[in-house]
Formats: sequence, structure tokens, C-alpha cells
Amino acid sequence: MKKHIGIIGYGNLGRGVALALQSSPDMTLTAVFTRRDPSSIAVPGDAISCSLDDITNWQDKIDVMILCGGSATDLPTQTPAYSAQFNIVDSFDTHANIPNHFAKVDAAAKAGGHLALISCGWDPGMFSLNRLYANAILPQGSDYTFWGRGVSQGHSDAIRRIPGVRNAKQYTVPVEEALAAVRAGTHPRLTTRQKHTRECFVVLEDGANAQAVAQAIKTMPNYFADYDTTVHFVSEEELRKNHSGMAHGGMVFRSGTTGQQREHTHVIEYRLTLDSNPEFTGSVLTACARAVYRLAEEGATGCRTLFDVPPAYLSHMSDAELRQTFL
Amino acid sequence: MKKHIGIIGYGNLGRGVALALQSSPDMTLTAVFTRRDPSSIAVPGDAISCSLDDITNWQDKIDVMILCGGSATDLPTQTPAYSAQFNIVDSFDTHANIPNHFAKVDAAAKAGGHLALISCGWDPGMFSLNRLYANAILPQGSDYTFWGRGVSQGHSDAIRRIPGVRNAKQYTVPVEEALAAVRAGTHPRLTTRQKHTRECFVVLEDGANAQAVAQAIKTMPNYFADYDTTVHFVSEEELRKNHSGMAHGGMVFRSGTTGQQREHTHVIEYRLTLDSNPEFTGSVLTACARAVYRLAEEGATGCRTLFDVPPAYLSHMSDAELRQTFL
Repeated sequence: MKKHIGIIGYGNLGRGVALALQSSPDMTLTAVFTRRDPSSIAVPGDAISCSLDDITNWQDKIDVMILCGGSATDLPTQTPAYSAQFNIVDSFDTHANIPNHFAKVDAAAKAGGHLALISCGWDPGMFSLNRLYANAILPQGSDYTFWGRGVSQGHSDAIRRIPGVRNAKQYTVPVEEALAAVRAGTHPRLTTRQKHTRECFVVLEDGANAQAVAQAIKTMPNYFADYDTTVHFVSEEELRKNHSGMAHGGMVFRSGTTGQQREHTHVIEYRLTLDSNPEFTGSVLTACARAVYRLAEEGATGCRTLFDVPPAYLSHMSDAELRQTFL
Repeated sequence: MKKHIGIIGYGNLGRGVALALQSSPDMTLTAVFTRRDPSSIAVPGDAISCSLDDITNWQDKIDVMILCGGSATDLPTQTPAYSAQFNIVDSFDTHANIPNHFAKVDAAAKAGGHLALISCGWDPGMFSLNRLYANAILPQGSDYTFWGRGVSQGHSDAIRRIPGVRNAKQYTVPVEEALAAVRAGTHPRLTTRQKHTRECFVVLEDGANAQAVAQAIKTMPNYFADYDTTVHFVSEEELRKNHSGMAHGGMVFRSGTTGQQREHTHVIEYRLTLDSNPEFTGSVLTACARAVYRLAEEGATGCRTLFDVPPAYLSHMSDAELRQTFL
């Protein structure tokens, strides 16, 4: 019997989950829930597209619901609401608000007798796991996270809000010298500017002042002022042609020491190079849905993160097969 | 109350565990058990060195015993024997024999009402975890493991058994071109020869024939015949001075695809660069002892691997603190 999976929200991430489910022998996409007109959504296989308004009717037909909305406005309300009715997975990624999100979801899921696994993806998610493992192994050391090369949605949005800008994409780029220093085990202290540069591709409105726009970008507090920023002005056509990709990635390092005089340095690096951010994130969420199903079957309720999930629960293979294949 | 930890076997790995315990706020080294004369062993802090013959007297004084013997002859008998009496951690690393080792330890630990966590370290151990996570996320793809640059004890021993050889160290070295191809996401099919080279530093007996020894090494089946092997003849003094280090490391990759036409490639890389193999491995075993303690407190018995352990159990931090710090 395949597990019945539902998807809430069918943008890039939702489609990434749908693709990942096609590669999962033990799960099937049963329904997609949308705020749009369900008939306008093309869903794969035997899945049904439904209005989000009808979701309550699906409580006995969906084993795990994967929430594919955004962290800014969708998930803060959707995850608590739906975890009262379903076992759920989300990718809530506003780091500072995770404790608050966790508490709300935990209360709702417990009240409904369901299980929620939040903040799944790669950061938070796989990067978080690697930070935890590496810190447990090497309690004395330094952590480093680098992102990119990849598009930052938040920074692209910030540029688009500048008067005179019609469209923009912003790439976050790790600085090679900083990576080399961390990999060499020198435990460098790196400023914000030393870790990443920012590269912007901007389409201007007709008649806009390019120099003023570049200046507005480079001096923007929080987003750009602390970085070495490059601004390229391009046509809408060039932006669409060369900067529509969804590649991303990054690295998590822990550089720690052991020894009587702490004379031995160890560097742990976890690196992701992703052609498609939403398809990779969707693949993580899909593996997480499998773990939620198994934990819920065991009677678990409330909110969890990947920190609480035995790694074997993410796989469809048996424990003996896992030991034979991967140990 | 600190957890009381015992160490069985006080070679390089045992000393690595002792050092790691000094960096662990929640654990203390209570006793070291040895087959040697206990008075000949210098143990740190308030720890006591004891004869292995007296170990049964320590059943109510040790929370978790960390076995630091070798996989060839020590652990196959020690782990089943001691897991009947203690909660234990071992680093059994003979991959092909893990299913058999697991079954024996599981039966012994269950009969004794104790918990055993086997095959902890980096390979098996952290590399295994990364293989499992990456395969659960990307079910369609290829796995690659590279080791080195570092000394292989088995290959060094094999050289020392050749007539005319007084001493030897053998380095396993990953091939840069192979690493580059894997990182580029080209899913290469790599032969044994294409993945690693072998570099040997050999001290000859007086009057031995260097050319015959080099030939014997390079043509040795399984160990060297399938590799490009370099042999350097050095003095005993040079070997001691330049080749006594215990640095090691390696990389685990998964290169997988997603997308309607599998047009997107994702590369997951986990890399370790270790100044001291035994101190890093000892650090992993120490974090594992913490997890064993917590699982045993919850009533778990029998044999487990890291695949079964919620990552949070390896850390001394609270769940809320972990979410705040690492998620």
C-alpha cells in the first residue's frame, strides 16, 4: 500500500515535490490543494487538483500533507492550521522565527493528534543536520556557512522595490579566498564582506538613471551595504534568457581541534551544488514525508525537526538493507 | 551528574576517546581496561586503569563502555561479550562482516538487557550517514567514496610481509581528475585505478633487492595490482620522521538527478580532512556514547547503528537550544 501524499501550494516547490514523488516507490501523489482555480492546475498521474477550501474533506484520504507555500506569509498560518487536521511537513525557513513557529505548530498538532516535521529542506534542513553532527563530534571549533552561487529571492525583491527598476536578479557568491582559508583549517575570522559578494542583474525602467540605481543598491543597509556588490544593467530579454535558472547551493564547515595541546585540526565540509533549488528542496520534503508517516504510525504527535528523526526513517529500505548497502 | 564512561583498550583510539571526553561537559572517564599491566598505563584525570580481567566488577559503575580494540581480532569477540554486561559503543569497520557482527551483538545485548551502538567512526559512521541521507533525498543517482590522502594500515601491513622489507607506510591518494569529474556532476563511471593511487614508503632489510621488492608490491593482487602504485625507498629514520603522522580523510559524494527529463543534476559532497584519524574517530565514539546513554535510559536494548539514532541524541544541548543554534 502506497502512502497517500497531498501537496498544498503548487508553485516551483510544489512541482518539485510532485516530481520527487514519481521517484518514490512507496508514496503516491493523491491530491494537490490550491487557492487558484483547481481546473487551471495540471497535476501528474492520477492526482486530483482541489480547492484549498475543500481540504477538510480529505482528512481520511491523505497520510501526509506537504506544505509548499512561502515562509513569509503562507506557512506561519497554514502550518498551525493544517497540522491540527493532518500529519504535515513544511520548509519554514525564517531562522529567527523558528522557535515561535515550532511552539505554535506543536500545540496545534498535539491538540489534533497529528505529527508535524518543520523546517525541512537544505537550509534549514540538511545544513542544520550537518551543523549539529559536526558540533557534537568536535565541541571545540568554528562553524562557517556559505551560500551560492545562487539567486537570493529576498535580495532580488529588494532591488525591484527601488524606483526606476523594472526587474532584477541577485546572485550570492561565496568568496574563493575565504573558502580556501576555511578548508586549510586556519580557523579564519571572516567579516560579512569577506565571505560573500553580491552580483546584481538589473533591468531599468525607460528613462531611469542607471548611476542612481546602482548607488541605491550598493548602499542599501543590511542587504548590500556590508558587501562588495557588482551591478550589471541588462535587457529584460537577457535577464529572462540568462538568469531564469534556479541553481543554488552552498557549504557548511566545521573546523575543530583535538589533542593535548589542541594541536590537531579537523575540517568537516558538507557541500551542495544544485541545478534546481526547488526540485532538490522538494526531494528533501518528500523523504521527510516518509519519516512523518512512520513516526505517526508509532503514535508520535506534536512538532519535530530533522534533529529528532532517526536517519533510517527517511529511507524506504529496511534496516537490514540499509546496513548492508550504506554502512 | 556526569555519565561514567569506560574505555576498553588503550592504544591510539583509546587515547583519542580519553581526549574527547575531556572536551565533553557531561561525561567523565571513570576507568580504562587493558590486557597490559594496568600500572604501566598513564590515564588522565581521576580515571583508574584496571585489568580487563576485573571488568565484571564494574557493571554498576560504568554507564557506557567504549570499545577501542581492532576489528580484525578484538571486536568480533569483545563486543558480543561485553554488550551482555554493559551498554557499549564500538567502531567495527569490516564492512562485509557487519551483518554477522550486528546479529551476534544484538542477541548478546538483548539477553543482557543492554544497548550496543556498533560501527561508529567516520567510515563506517559519518560517511555511512551521509550515504543514507543522500540516497533518501536523491533516489536516482550514483555514489562515490574516496579515501585519503592517508595511511592505510592494511596496505602497509601487506608490504611489511614481503621478504626484504623491514618497514613500510602506504598512502591512499584520491585522483584529482576523478574528484573534479564527480564534482562537475558528469556521473563518471570510474575504475578502481581511476579513483585512487597508492604511494609506498619502504625501508629495506640490508642487502635486499629493491627492484624485486618494488615489483612484488606493484603486482600484489587486490592490494596493489589494480592501482597505479609508486614505491619510494627511504631510511628507517626518514620513515619515522616524515611518515609517522596519522592524518587521513576522504569524501562521500552522491550525484543525483531530478526533473521531468532528469535534466537537473545535484551533487552532495561530504568531506573530512583530519589531522589525526584516531582522535577524530575517538571524538565520534564519544558523541555516540552520549546517545547510547540516553537511548538506554529510555529502555532501548539490543544492537543499533547511527542510522537508528536521532541526531539530537549525540549532543549535550537541549532540543530547544539545538533548534535555536543549529537549525
